[in-house]
Amino acid sequence: MNCVFCQIIEGKLPARLVYRDELVTVFHDRAPITPVHLLVVPNRHLESLNQVQEADRELLGHMILTAQQIAAQMGIQHSGYRLVINTGRDAGQSVFHLHLHLIGGTRMAFPLQPGEFS
Amino acid sequence: MNCVFCQIIEGKLPARLVYRDELVTVFHDRAPITPVHLLVVPNRHLESLNQVQEADRELLGHMILTAQQIAAQMGIQHSGYRLVINTGRDAGQSVFHLHLHLIGGTRMAFPLQPGEFS
Repeated sequence: MNCVFCQIIEGKLPARLVYRDELVTVFHDRAPITPVHLLVVPNRHLESLNQVQEADRELLGHMILTAQQIAAQMGIQHSGYRLVINTGRDAGQSVFHLHLHLIGGTRMAFPLQPGEFS
Repeated sequence: MNCVFCQIIEGKLPARLVYRDELVTVFHDRAPITPVHLLVVPNRHLESLNQVQEADRELLGHMILTAQQIAAQMGIQHSGYRLVINTGRDAGQSVFHLHLHLIGGTRMAFPLQPGEFS
């Protein structure tokens, strides 16, 4: 397996880990786009959201709840934060192991600026 | 209750509904930022992700799975789509009833353009 996230989860590649349990691992994005930019990643390899099934409902809920709790730990629950899951080409998914971006620590525009869509 | 989304869910305000079950309602954003821009909204009023608790794990998982299924229905599961949950001021949350944006139908940049953060 050449999956970068699997290698991080298995401890074979370094990353700044923040949290870990039996279902998910959370670490800092190595190219942060905001002051807080973490990735919540299922330990099991799933290529993208398109691979997820009904039986993964709890896993998905756990990913969101974990992100919510980590946002609180990072002290950004009141200032605000954004969760993003990118699936496939149009969304710019770059690593094909399902992951949830937790970004915050700065004011983020939404709706997005015109420049965001090319 | 003056919540716009509660009123849509109760049928008191018009919206272009796409899906409905006992837990969630899905409708078109009235100011779409992409060709496909839907909102997946829990029927129960929750102000934001900060109000969500451990007992809501299934609801959260169901929101994501619903978005995945609707993306397939809309024919964008292969071209790609983005899921976004905004919480609080920094994320630009504008309606204080928890909602998940499902956006797609065009190429979306990620990491975001410099202009997106003000």
